[in-house]
Amino acid sequence: MDSITTLINTLGQNARTASKTLRSATTYQKNNALINIAEQVNKNRKDILNANQKDLTQGKDNKLDAALLDRLMLDDVRLDGIIESLKQIAALPDPVGEITDLKYRPSGIQVGKMRVPLGVMGIIYESRPNVTIDAAALCLKSGNGAILRGGSEAIDSNIALYACVRRGLIDASLNKNCVQLIDTTDRAAVTELVKAKDFVDAIIPRGGKGLVEAISDSAKMPVIKHLHGICHTYIDKDADTKKAINIAFNGKARRYGVCNATETLLIHASAVGRVMPELIAEFIAKGVELRGCKETQKLSKQIKKATEEDWDTEYLDAILSIRIVNSMTDAIDHIEQHGSGHTEAIVSENYGATRRFMTEVDSSSIMVNASTGFADGFEYGLGAEIGISTDKFHVRGPVGLEGLTSQKYIVLGDGHIRS
Amino acid sequence: MDSITTLINTLGQNARTASKTLRSATTYQKNNALINIAEQVNKNRKDILNANQKDLTQGKDNKLDAALLDRLMLDDVRLDGIIESLKQIAALPDPVGEITDLKYRPSGIQVGKMRVPLGVMGIIYESRPNVTIDAAALCLKSGNGAILRGGSEAIDSNIALYACVRRGLIDASLNKNCVQLIDTTDRAAVTELVKAKDFVDAIIPRGGKGLVEAISDSAKMPVIKHLHGICHTYIDKDADTKKAINIAFNGKARRYGVCNATETLLIHASAVGRVMPELIAEFIAKGVELRGCKETQKLSKQIKKATEEDWDTEYLDAILSIRIVNSMTDAIDHIEQHGSGHTEAIVSENYGATRRFMTEVDSSSIMVNASTGFADGFEYGLGAEIGISTDKFHVRGPVGLEGLTSQKYIVLGDGHIRS
Repeated sequence: MDSITTLINTLGQNARTASKTLRSATTYQKNNALINIAEQVNKNRKDILNANQKDLTQGKDNKLDAALLDRLMLDDVRLDGIIESLKQIAALPDPVGEITDLKYRPSGIQVGKMRVPLGVMGIIYESRPNVTIDAAALCLKSGNGAILRGGSEAIDSNIALYACVRRGLIDASLNKNCVQLIDTTDRAAVTELVKAKDFVDAIIPRGGKGLVEAISDSAKMPVIKHLHGICHTYIDKDADTKKAINIAFNGKARRYGVCNATETLLIHASAVGRVMPELIAEFIAKGVELRGCKETQKLSKQIKKATEEDWDTEYLDAILSIRIVNSMTDAIDHIEQHGSGHTEAIVSENYGATRRFMTEVDSSSIMVNASTGFADGFEYGLGAEIGISTDKFHVRGPVGLEGLTSQKYIVLGDGHIRS
Repeated sequence: MDSITTLINTLGQNARTASKTLRSATTYQKNNALINIAEQVNKNRKDILNANQKDLTQGKDNKLDAALLDRLMLDDVRLDGIIESLKQIAALPDPVGEITDLKYRPSGIQVGKMRVPLGVMGIIYESRPNVTIDAAALCLKSGNGAILRGGSEAIDSNIALYACVRRGLIDASLNKNCVQLIDTTDRAAVTELVKAKDFVDAIIPRGGKGLVEAISDSAKMPVIKHLHGICHTYIDKDADTKKAINIAFNGKARRYGVCNATETLLIHASAVGRVMPELIAEFIAKGVELRGCKETQKLSKQIKKATEEDWDTEYLDAILSIRIVNSMTDAIDHIEQHGSGHTEAIVSENYGATRRFMTEVDSSSIMVNASTGFADGFEYGLGAEIGISTDKFHVRGPVGLEGLTSQKYIVLGDGHIRS
């Protein structure tokens, strides 16, 4: 067995053992650990920023692009954000142990469900060092052991932040192996981690589509995955004009680089005349490049031709594709064919149309007269999210504490036997 | 592409297309199809029993053992059971479309969850022909397309039963491909099916541990799996004597060949004197072979020595292993080490002990003062079960209609945009 295999096995065994104690840790202990970690981050700002500086210097030497360096960068404001996030997670209700649906059955037993942790989570992420703390905090609060593997560009920052996590766990009398960091940048560690199904119950990859696909293909355990967000806003023939303009504009132009941004606008032919002139003007004024179908192009010379590829593209940029459709069926078919199952919005005052859209469109979030931009754990009241699942199995949409748990059955009797 | 690959691709594409229509089929249509199928089974009893006779003759020629031939056998009583089961599933509430937790958020949007089908299920099972109907019915009611692959021993019975399913779907104006049967006995079809991740959203294997393990190892999509049931009953020092005897006896001796049967009895040393003499006598009178730890063996000459292997064995037979423990911690450790995460029971009148057992034991069902024999979809009120999941991801314990669904988010606004 080579050294990486040995390393992962050791981390895995430690995580398994620690997770068994964490499973029944009290809410007080877990919250206490979170607050301790926040204090450690606050106390060790200098060390963390020094470590981050090393990563940044290395990154510049390695010619990393500006966007990546920005994601990698920590400063006091970002550390404040990390500390605030820890406090918010501590303030959330503990999902573990919640008993629901406890009901008497004809046999006399009471049957209900108890929410329990999944076990050990493997979190594989790219260059944002704040994920080290976020992922640790969400796993901890949900009673799961965690093995963290961050991007190699952030290795020093991650080691410095992880030292705070470890100190916080120890100060709360929790097993220090409840959260572990893979502190080698050897890529073989990821390969081994996703094979370690005896120790890891689920993998959450956080990063680009390439990373997520590679991990999904090789993982031997379930993967909670977020592939991509090709989100649609559909303006129905019965859409309110003002709402349609606001929702379509906000869905695209609020922020460009987010997975819940609208990438394609679908609009019913009979709503075009009253909606599009103003909407096109707003987009152009904002500097959004418009790419349209043949009919759309007739509306303005500034609209480029959308190719077939456009309908399948997550721009994450100031670009919007637009298609005029002759029916809601055509809109739903377009979404079915080109969407990624992330988030779709309908704008309509028609009761039947909204009801049909909610039922027939198979995406993790369906917005009715609201912007696709609301698809977010905080907006949904989850308090924090570890990712957005574009899968259907286990959990869909923003994944908060509940998505990191499962439910077991509990049966209460008083000497009951089955006939 | 060879013919099996082509076959599975065709079935898969058909299933995907059909599942999109089934997703928004009305409750009336689905129930109507179920009742139609029941009528078809009733009308075609002669054809079904003739086909089954062919399977039985073939099976005898192939020297199948008596237990397998019994599972394979259909008669009018068993067909009555199949018809009754269809009617029961039709009478269950439709899980699809259920909206829960719809709440206002500070932004003004309302966020809730809507229950939706998973998509297309692949069901792989062994020689019981009734599974053809049960699986078809549960998938249909939960809005999922289904591709069925039964054991080769039951091929003629399955084809005859499936003809009823298809007729029932057509008569209810549903796409006939909502349920499809793989009608070749070529084993390569299973290999191809579990690779067809573009068409199949989850696989449910129903059969022995060997089948389930083989499928889990090779499947490219999530598997809802039931590995095995090594269930424990723990008699605490504060157990009521009568309840302890009844629950332990019922857990083992109610039926031997079921996954929820108690395979190992753990008893606190201080309860042995008042519980074991009567309990041992009852087991011996019933013909149950007892295998005990050193301390247990002192109680009766008829108790054989339990080897290390016994603690890890699912007997599915009239055999019980018994271990005397000195504390509840020892009992929980034993379960952790040897259990399969299926079902464990505690018998105790002590509040703290029952609470601790419920929290610390990580199994899909925890029984407090009730027999392990209650771990069953019907007993839990699920109406029917497609299997029992010993996994933690997505669903644990008996899997009914809800386990075949997922939840998407719905957001209701009135022109809301995100700031």
